[in-house]
Amino acid sequence: MTDLRSALATKGPIDLSTIGSDSTPQFEGGKKDAQRLLPQIGRQLMDLQELLFANGRSGTTDRKVLMLLQGMDTSGKGGTLRHVAGLVDPQGVLITAFKAPTEEERQKDFLWRIEKEVPPPGMIGVFDRSHYEDVLIGRVRELASAEEIERRYDAINDFEKRFVDGGGVLLKCFLHISPEDQKERLTERLDDPTKYWKYNPGDLDERELWGPYQQAYEIVLERCSTDHAPWHLVPAGRKWYRNWAIATMLGETLADLDLQWPPPDFDVEAQKRRLATM
Amino acid sequence: MTDLRSALATKGPIDLSTIGSDSTPQFEGGKKDAQRLLPQIGRQLMDLQELLFANGRSGTTDRKVLMLLQGMDTSGKGGTLRHVAGLVDPQGVLITAFKAPTEEERQKDFLWRIEKEVPPPGMIGVFDRSHYEDVLIGRVRELASAEEIERRYDAINDFEKRFVDGGGVLLKCFLHISPEDQKERLTERLDDPTKYWKYNPGDLDERELWGPYQQAYEIVLERCSTDHAPWHLVPAGRKWYRNWAIATMLGETLADLDLQWPPPDFDVEAQKRRLATM
Repeated sequence: MTDLRSALATKGPIDLSTIGSDSTPQFEGGKKDAQRLLPQIGRQLMDLQELLFANGRSGTTDRKVLMLLQGMDTSGKGGTLRHVAGLVDPQGVLITAFKAPTEEERQKDFLWRIEKEVPPPGMIGVFDRSHYEDVLIGRVRELASAEEIERRYDAINDFEKRFVDGGGVLLKCFLHISPEDQKERLTERLDDPTKYWKYNPGDLDERELWGPYQQAYEIVLERCSTDHAPWHLVPAGRKWYRNWAIATMLGETLADLDLQWPPPDFDVEAQKRRLATM
Repeated sequence: MTDLRSALATKGPIDLSTIGSDSTPQFEGGKKDAQRLLPQIGRQLMDLQELLFANGRSGTTDRKVLMLLQGMDTSGKGGTLRHVAGLVDPQGVLITAFKAPTEEERQKDFLWRIEKEVPPPGMIGVFDRSHYEDVLIGRVRELASAEEIERRYDAINDFEKRFVDGGGVLLKCFLHISPEDQKERLTERLDDPTKYWKYNPGDLDERELWGPYQQAYEIVLERCSTDHAPWHLVPAGRKWYRNWAIATMLGETLADLDLQWPPPDFDVEAQKRRLATM
């Protein structure tokens, strides 16, 4: 079986309207199977993450992982944080949710606030939205000039290249849903008083621009799915598949680092002797 | 059954040498029972935390929780983060590990770096070590004058009172182990190459000062276990009891907030009508 990351990686032009949101690439089985598997994957993730964390603490690695989540409203970024990022030791995870930029942030280059949140060695960073917003809502809502938007694609690729050259690994996940999926999920939020807090009337204004947003995503997937930082298209119509797929790809990413336990930087036998007398 | 927080709260003078680290107050059963219960408690914590988080997002509460972990080396602060903080949605938890203060931090009041990490409304903050280090290692190693150390107890009580008056709740946990527990755990770290990274030769220098440290903790427990922010003594010789007890107390703390789901700040029926046409 191919690595799931390879199976979901996008390359070249893409037409999102032709891709089903309810497919389950490389997964044999249904919802119950996926839910049963998740805790097992969680234990593997815990172990692999501890190895990364240990090396970070010991100063024996420059490796770090940045998982980046993008997708339309209700595509499940929050659910992924809860069910996938929640599988690993919270000490080793840094989650950043990027909201609309502040006045200060708008006065700087769009990557300024991003660079500040890049994870240090040994850590897993998770971005809930990211610098891609600046070529998504930025493009659709014309928040910057056409030239500036154009400039950003290369700036993003350069920034990500620098991160990778410095020992980073990017896991970029686009959570793909259909307009019908979104309608169903927004309806759920409006039907359930325990979900009102997740609903924002502005979501419908964005929904009206579904076509332009899909087009903006297609441009991102074409121009910013690079060899050093490919995009992965995760069908997210089925939440259980989305969780399984992202947890699996995170495990593949961590395993690929191929780290060893850091050697002691002290004399083990001498320490044992001293401890024995105490 | 009494609330576990009341059962473990300390009040007045205390002699730590008379308190067993392997007792399991209010727990009926053994290791397997506790490990079986933990995921159930986790689900309750998830639900209660979501309620707090939802209110934070909606701006309908000033409530926030700060869980504070203190204890000798190997008492299990890291394990608690992994197994208890790891039970809830990582989006709603802010973990801060306080190391030796930096040069900049040493030039400010000892509470300066602490205030910066206090959780905002809707969030659970977790402190791995805290301002108490400034009257623990600070006292034992004479890192400040006797007058300054003396001043700090009241300053801490005032600071915590302000936090509580502003809608905060403190859950202060002292993880109590015996010198034998520590010897066993340090030995495990020296016997297992996958644990070398957790070992620091300086740990034995601290171990030599076991008595003075216990005395410094006794002063903390006597002077800073207040009505608004009591200390809880958690016997931590058995890791499974420690995890169960802290998860249980966190659940009690969250349940006590008695929050309701935030009301909609939009016209639900109007939104449904608009969505139906899209």
